[in-house]
Amino acid sequence: MTKTKIGIIGGAGYTAGELLRLLINHPEVEIAFVHSTSNAGEPVTSVHGGLLGETDLIFSDTHPLEDIDLLFLCSAHGHSRKFWEENSRPDGLKVIDLAQDFRDESEGYVYGLPEANFSRIRGARSVANPGCFATAIQLSLLPLAAAGLLPEKGDINVTALTGSTGAGVKPGSTTHFSWRNDNISVYKPFTHQHLKEIAMTLSQLQPGFSSEINFVPVRGDFARGIFAIVTLDSALDEEEAVKLYKDYYASAPFAVVSDSPVDLKQAVNTNKAVIHVEKHGRKLLVTCAEDNLLKGASGQAVQNMNIMLGLDQREGLRLKPSAF
Amino acid sequence: MTKTKIGIIGGAGYTAGELLRLLINHPEVEIAFVHSTSNAGEPVTSVHGGLLGETDLIFSDTHPLEDIDLLFLCSAHGHSRKFWEENSRPDGLKVIDLAQDFRDESEGYVYGLPEANFSRIRGARSVANPGCFATAIQLSLLPLAAAGLLPEKGDINVTALTGSTGAGVKPGSTTHFSWRNDNISVYKPFTHQHLKEIAMTLSQLQPGFSSEINFVPVRGDFARGIFAIVTLDSALDEEEAVKLYKDYYASAPFAVVSDSPVDLKQAVNTNKAVIHVEKHGRKLLVTCAEDNLLKGASGQAVQNMNIMLGLDQREGLRLKPSAF
Amino acid sequence: MTKTKIGIIGGAGYTAGELLRLLINHPEVEIAFVHSTSNAGEPVTSVHGGLLGETDLIFSDTHPLEDIDLLFLCSAHGHSRKFWEENSRPDGLKVIDLAQDFRDESEGYVYGLPEANFSRIRGARSVANPGCFATAIQLSLLPLAAAGLLPEKGDINVTALTGSTGAGVKPGSTTHFSWRNDNISVYKPFTHQHLKEIAMTLSQLQPGFSSEINFVPVRGDFARGIFAIVTLDSALDEEEAVKLYKDYYASAPFAVVSDSPVDLKQAVNTNKAVIHVEKHGRKLLVTCAEDNLLKGASGQAVQNMNIMLGLDQREGLRLKPSAF
Amino acid sequence: MTKTKIGIIGGAGYTAGELLRLLINHPEVEIAFVHSTSNAGEPVTSVHGGLLGETDLIFSDTHPLEDIDLLFLCSAHGHSRKFWEENSRPDGLKVIDLAQDFRDESEGYVYGLPEANFSRIRGARSVANPGCFATAIQLSLLPLAAAGLLPEKGDINVTALTGSTGAGVKPGSTTHFSWRNDNISVYKPFTHQHLKEIAMTLSQLQPGFSSEINFVPVRGDFARGIFAIVTLDSALDEEEAVKLYKDYYASAPFAVVSDSPVDLKQAVNTNKAVIHVEKHGRKLLVTCAEDNLLKGASGQAVQNMNIMLGLDQREGLRLKPSAF
Repeated sequence: MTKTKIGIIGGAGYTAGELLRLLINHPEVEIAFVHSTSNAGEPVTSVHGGLLGETDLIFSDTHPLEDIDLLFLCSAHGHSRKFWEENSRPDGLKVIDLAQDFRDESEGYVYGLPEANFSRIRGARSVANPGCFATAIQLSLLPLAAAGLLPEKGDINVTALTGSTGAGVKPGSTTHFSWRNDNISVYKPFTHQHLKEIAMTLSQLQPGFSSEINFVPVRGDFARGIFAIVTLDSALDEEEAVKLYKDYYASAPFAVVSDSPVDLKQAVNTNKAVIHVEKHGRKLLVTCAEDNLLKGASGQAVQNMNIMLGLDQREGLRLKPSAF
Repeated sequence: MTKTKIGIIGGAGYTAGELLRLLINHPEVEIAFVHSTSNAGEPVTSVHGGLLGETDLIFSDTHPLEDIDLLFLCSAHGHSRKFWEENSRPDGLKVIDLAQDFRDESEGYVYGLPEANFSRIRGARSVANPGCFATAIQLSLLPLAAAGLLPEKGDINVTALTGSTGAGVKPGSTTHFSWRNDNISVYKPFTHQHLKEIAMTLSQLQPGFSSEINFVPVRGDFARGIFAIVTLDSALDEEEAVKLYKDYYASAPFAVVSDSPVDLKQAVNTNKAVIHVEKHGRKLLVTCAEDNLLKGASGQAVQNMNIMLGLDQREGLRLKPSAF
Repeated sequence: MTKTKIGIIGGAGYTAGELLRLLINHPEVEIAFVHSTSNAGEPVTSVHGGLLGETDLIFSDTHPLEDIDLLFLCSAHGHSRKFWEENSRPDGLKVIDLAQDFRDESEGYVYGLPEANFSRIRGARSVANPGCFATAIQLSLLPLAAAGLLPEKGDINVTALTGSTGAGVKPGSTTHFSWRNDNISVYKPFTHQHLKEIAMTLSQLQPGFSSEINFVPVRGDFARGIFAIVTLDSALDEEEAVKLYKDYYASAPFAVVSDSPVDLKQAVNTNKAVIHVEKHGRKLLVTCAEDNLLKGASGQAVQNMNIMLGLDQREGLRLKPSAF
Repeated sequence: MTKTKIGIIGGAGYTAGELLRLLINHPEVEIAFVHSTSNAGEPVTSVHGGLLGETDLIFSDTHPLEDIDLLFLCSAHGHSRKFWEENSRPDGLKVIDLAQDFRDESEGYVYGLPEANFSRIRGARSVANPGCFATAIQLSLLPLAAAGLLPEKGDINVTALTGSTGAGVKPGSTTHFSWRNDNISVYKPFTHQHLKEIAMTLSQLQPGFSSEINFVPVRGDFARGIFAIVTLDSALDEEEAVKLYKDYYASAPFAVVSDSPVDLKQAVNTNKAVIHVEKHGRKLLVTCAEDNLLKGASGQAVQNMNIMLGLDQREGLRLKPSAF
């Protein structure tokens, strides 16, 4: 059986690195090129830690789209649209875009959240991979939305912490170790760009949904992971809520509902989102842990690829958790 | 001028250690004894890091209350009441209790939050030092409560992260480095014991206040500090809210209102609570950073001592921030 | 093809957890039982993070040795000898002991360092898995020893840092997060128990070797990994030394010689030891990074299992590096 | 009594920030200006964390040397010489340079290591403040050098870890949180620039000393502190060695010899170097913990200032250790 030929654009960034760490061991694909303007000619291992001894790939300065079956776009936000303005797309080429450029499902892109859009992704030619925060927050709310049980009015409150890898490879003051270590801070409160894609999905599932999501993103002092804390009013009791979540995710291999409280490291270095549901008074508390680079980015991209290629969703994603 | 003579009970715990690190350099006090059942006879430096070369104090197995002017009770919750069942209190002895035993203001104790109760603390014989979370959350809400502007109904949402020192010196699974490092988790959601003292203070300031405080405590992967994120509906616009906070804290040396977003390390190793106020739509966002062992415990205890002794509140508390 | 049936003794510890995280995805084995006295009846996921949704294994209170092909002993040091005093060993049963009980190659055990003893391990019925520090230090010196180029007299100086998981699951003062975070300290200098097994291997390769290894172990403020820094006098120039190391490890998939300086996270969550060699004046500097729970423990145990079973050494060990 | 007027050049860097955090509470000085080209006009608190509410200082674009008594040069290495090429120095102006420009004692500068050069510093008009690594390593060796007991030939081996603040405020790849967190790596082995000043001091104390110091600097995954591990041959037994160190440092308030093994956090946020001495076979093991920004930089600069001004060395340096 021939392997699917893969190309990667934006090969020097964090999401491309994580994609490479996954695809190198994926049994059904081979990497045709990893394009990087700034690192062309250099070995991939010079940039991406942990791959030494496992690959001889060299960053390429060309990206022959006609030679591949599927393209991952890993460039910065805005660059994906630009890429398609400057390059023509072969007919049979599948595309998964990790930037936010097409998450509004423009240009025929399907929003690549498998737990919401599995069958649409299966048939898709183009998939827009969700944002990291957006994935954790949506997975915390999908079962309620699908059942039409999100509050019509009233607040949905979300506080979510992200690891420093969410800010990308370029060093800056808020990713400086001297500042970030042991530190906590808030950024973009109530205005984070992921709110748009969250609202899109939730209103697709629960037409008429228009409650405010009060989202306070927090910079955490760890490198990998997102931990989301969601509270909202609900008429369900705890048992009903837990059943709703377990039923909804029964066939989703990477959305795991835990009977015990979750901690971030249960999800780190896996493609899982680990979800826990409690009820206190009239408030439902949903917590969700994921790895921002895996289920929140490159892992989900591989999951989408698997679905688009008709493979088992888990192919190449049975990862050893780091646990510590 | 004679110095105030100090005794400490429960000398081997974290709050006693921090108290010692403060009092050793306090110009108006001398430490008469540091009592510890488990460490009697050992040098204080054998337990409390950072003091080597600065003190020759030895843990004592006696606590002669008649020899001192002021007693700090640093034992575990519940042990302060027990201590007074087993010991008689000299008439002139002032007491500051760092446990939660008398935070309900029973037995004549005054709740020792200077930003709310300054004049009552000044005249007090017994002070119950507030909880660490309780301090940060109250300082985030006091100006509104004092103005009668807390919402009568509707939610006050609080997510607050604490450092591992909040869990005390005894090792356990959730303070094991292998687990805690790079990890995030929720505990006691909606049920944390500090909610009681918060409600007491707020309803003293704003009679009739009875809104729910939805408090989700979070274990952070740092040793020192509390970072509180508070959101609530408010009719004030941002300018009015900031002015309200600045006016309320105008004479409070340790409650600092910042015009810029705060980060945890602005407060670490100081006795300050650094507070920031923003408005987004109808939501007020208040963030507050403090050091859980200082403004959240032993620093506030020294501040209370200063007030009780008629000293400048800042005496012994002009601390070099660690900053990094 | 029938899978190899595996039993695990001491199932609640860190090395057993890591073994489970590996074996669950190993294509050639199935886990027959995971024995734990203290956790019998509980799901394995209640103790071992990251496995939720991936296994339904329950800790067992029996260990039917006749039902399995290979046994991993993951108990504390000293308990392996005791286990064999209390249990009789079926003839065909292969054993890999992760404790230090048989690292002296007593009782027919082969010391399980594949880069030194590959062919002996292949034929072995019993393997004693090396210590974590011992692995890193030996891999830093093997090529020299095999060439008879370790200094006959003079010092070999080793400083090596270990993650907190090296100290096991039981909480204690030196693994308390409040103490360990951002902290560095030395323990067991010049006397660490791993020196014995290091000396054994080196003198097997270079008969007559008897130089002192001045080993200062250091507690690092991270959870996973060992970073060893080795300096010694050498007559080789840098080019010769690098060639010696690359040649020696040419067929060793998990000993990777890097042309650039290494950092710890290049090895974390992989079974690799990443090694770098430099020459300064008459001093050779060898640095080696490994994951203490993988190449330093459970990963190497699986590597040894693969060799004993005649499988590709890498089976089940093509792990996604965590990288961050 | 009039206070000493202080000027600071290079006010936006880490050492200037730490100096400000110290001098703000120093009873004998007042800060006349803090010069910063890049931040002129901005409040000092906009750059230096932890000072909010404690100072209204504004970064200045002028540096009127005639208005001050003592100048701290906190610019990057090389800029101090340049500064004096471009500015003329008033006769009475004392200078403390934190860069390495004059650590060779050129231009009349005295090398500002008080534990070696107290009386020369007392009379000095110009002091070159030692490097951070250099301080820790020299304090580990001074008593031996002063007694003429450093080995004439043979190795002195030093491995020392530094916090990320040692790399300065400018973000880069090795201070990126995503890379540095939980990571360990070596840099500039055997060639670190501090070796020069170390050799100078040691040969001043022990004429003829010319042994190699094999120094391997290590990047630690913490923000503050240096932990040095020094091993060397010695004819002293442990008791003699400890006595030598205690005697040598008897009158040095900031060099504390500990009877127990030291850990880094015993020194963090203090101006102390905490030193421990052990003997193993023929090897002396000296470990030394200091805060790189305090005893390793700005704290030592204030100590030097105190000595130059005839004040108690400890003035303004009785700091609360952070301990955690």
